[in-house]
Amino acid sequence: MKIGIIGLGTVGEGVLKVLVKEKESIFEKSRAKVEVKYACDLNINRDFSFDFDKSILIDDYKKVIADPEIKIVVELIGGETLAKTIITEAFRAKKSVVTANKALIAKHGVELFQIAKENGVSFLFEAAVGGGIPIVTPLMESLVANTITEIRGIMNGTSNYILTKMKNENLSFDEALKIASEKGYAEADPTYDVDGIDAGHKINILASLAYGGSIKFKDMQLKGIRDISTIDIFAANQLDSTIKLIASSKLFSETSAQISVEPTVVSNNRILSKVDDVYNAIETIGSYTDKTLFYGKGAGMNPTASAVVADIVKIVTRNHIESDYFFNSTKVFEIVDSNTIKSSYYIRVSDDFDIEKSPFEVEDKIENYYIILAENISKNEIDEIIKDAKEKLVLKILK
Amino acid sequence: MKIGIIGLGTVGEGVLKVLVKEKESIFEKSRAKVEVKYACDLNINRDFSFDFDKSILIDDYKKVIADPEIKIVVELIGGETLAKTIITEAFRAKKSVVTANKALIAKHGVELFQIAKENGVSFLFEAAVGGGIPIVTPLMESLVANTITEIRGIMNGTSNYILTKMKNENLSFDEALKIASEKGYAEADPTYDVDGIDAGHKINILASLAYGGSIKFKDMQLKGIRDISTIDIFAANQLDSTIKLIASSKLFSETSAQISVEPTVVSNNRILSKVDDVYNAIETIGSYTDKTLFYGKGAGMNPTASAVVADIVKIVTRNHIESDYFFNSTKVFEIVDSNTIKSSYYIRVSDDFDIEKSPFEVEDKIENYYIILAENISKNEIDEIIKDAKEKLVLKILK
Repeated sequence: MKIGIIGLGTVGEGVLKVLVKEKESIFEKSRAKVEVKYACDLNINRDFSFDFDKSILIDDYKKVIADPEIKIVVELIGGETLAKTIITEAFRAKKSVVTANKALIAKHGVELFQIAKENGVSFLFEAAVGGGIPIVTPLMESLVANTITEIRGIMNGTSNYILTKMKNENLSFDEALKIASEKGYAEADPTYDVDGIDAGHKINILASLAYGGSIKFKDMQLKGIRDISTIDIFAANQLDSTIKLIASSKLFSETSAQISVEPTVVSNNRILSKVDDVYNAIETIGSYTDKTLFYGKGAGMNPTASAVVADIVKIVTRNHIESDYFFNSTKVFEIVDSNTIKSSYYIRVSDDFDIEKSPFEVEDKIENYYIILAENISKNEIDEIIKDAKEKLVLKILK
Repeated sequence: MKIGIIGLGTVGEGVLKVLVKEKESIFEKSRAKVEVKYACDLNINRDFSFDFDKSILIDDYKKVIADPEIKIVVELIGGETLAKTIITEAFRAKKSVVTANKALIAKHGVELFQIAKENGVSFLFEAAVGGGIPIVTPLMESLVANTITEIRGIMNGTSNYILTKMKNENLSFDEALKIASEKGYAEADPTYDVDGIDAGHKINILASLAYGGSIKFKDMQLKGIRDISTIDIFAANQLDSTIKLIASSKLFSETSAQISVEPTVVSNNRILSKVDDVYNAIETIGSYTDKTLFYGKGAGMNPTASAVVADIVKIVTRNHIESDYFFNSTKVFEIVDSNTIKSSYYIRVSDDFDIEKSPFEVEDKIENYYIILAENISKNEIDEIIKDAKEKLVLKILK
């Protein structure tokens, strides 16, 4: 089957490399014959790290869409404008699409799946969540018998790297971010990673898959790791816990779920607390399987390319993958306001807070802060009690 | 598609339950229509924990094989004699087979896959390894781009439960085995579980899948947990490590691999050290993905049924799954003798051993034993050095 890759950035180059180098072994394992007819990028006059037939390089994506021989378009340019146009045009030209574009799926998944369906083609995106970790296919296929009641995990490698550095080397957020930038793990503008937006895209996608409905991205509650201080890291350690940026979704009713991204105090008894550096891990609670967990590298050229190639092989070997159930436009999931749900919380307040008059007890005093553990209370209730404190931070606890 | 379940023990009853209760939701998610036409067992006049149309119950499996409407036979009687006959007859009657029978696949996989291939039908076995954990499909399909260089994991829930009890409650092997038996986690004859045979079946299957060859089960080196004492558990803890029964396979050359099951001193930095009770976890090192890990419940009615049902849905939605590459009879993998490979070892010898005359240093002395850590040495070399000691135990270390 002939395919065209559009976008030769890190992931695109990785996909081309894997398809060139592993052509024989992929055929041997899967009987899939994958031929890259076009590799398209605006900048094609550059060096590549491996050898291939340079005649496949083109700089006009429309040539890929217009070629009836091309059955699969691999969209790897990222972004939400041109990428959306390319994918839509590919579907209309009766081509299946493989992408790693999580922002696009989280925001426009319903619309794009609808167009794919109208044109009888497939739309796959294993690489959009968890990089090289097989999670989308296992969730959609291997766990098909289960109602997935909970999904939670560490889905952003950059923020996990920063939190790991903060803990292991006693660094501030800014210091750890600087190292992440120097190592190439953080973008010039790290907002997507450290403010929970990227993890938000991913949990949106997984929840949509698990529940077979659509979840409005803009209604989601996203909180990043900028406010985490070395005091919180230290205090969590005293509690035999580790602070992790956790993206989670919990089924509430047949039509509602509690979906959020927030830094969380995770008990060291949990495997999630041991997921360090740029690794990701996603756990699901299924009605029959109970807990399953998937762990691996959440980003990078090679792991992400591995996932994109698996999707390409899937389309080649199966022709069409039905995706009716997923990103269903008629079944819209309501997001329950997490702040109204009673839970266990870690609270850090500056010591101007009049703790004697509050219902709380001090767990620890670190520098000028009280550390408080509160049970069976909602975030809104806590916020009301501590509203007059000069400084405050409230984190959910995962025991 | 009409199917017949043969064997209504724990797993068989679970599969029937899931297919009856989740019929609608499975169809909604996958478009697979699965109809159980026969549920076959020698003992059908008994109570079941859920309602279903009892007219499907039969006690003669030959009726399932003889019915041309049946496209899938689900073999869940276990054992190696009748099960092999049933599967062979099913293939010859042009029916695909789903099974959880790890012993049968590990020992007769090559022969059975050959018969399946000759008859153009599928042979799936997700439930044979890791119970409810999706591992076979991810390994065969999601990681298709990768050369899998290493596989290791905790693949037997019973022995892991015993080791967890020994550590957490300071029990001897016999005491912990007794509790496992009382809880129903260990069979009357626990040999398969505690002597590494069950884990051996599983790593044999995973290695065959990963390398696309066949591995002779009888050539494998299997060592169980009977010799582990509370002293070893304590000594491992002092080394910030945990003893786990690790099944592993490491690619050595294009035609050879180091495959074994053995109790191993696993560093507490590793996630595998945190896998407790009846949970299983399997990690793979792929050429592109690097490390991925899959964790979940390795046994039990519901998790295992979830995996069997996923395989049934896979056949219904895809018709035929090519399995040419796997359990290839023409590509036989040679097993490298682990005892000749230099590694890091934990050694416990009784104090009659003349340590002064040996090349070893004492790491710790517990009761009448020396604890020794040895680097860059083979098991055979160690055995030669400590051959005169009255009592000895040598365990591999996984840092």
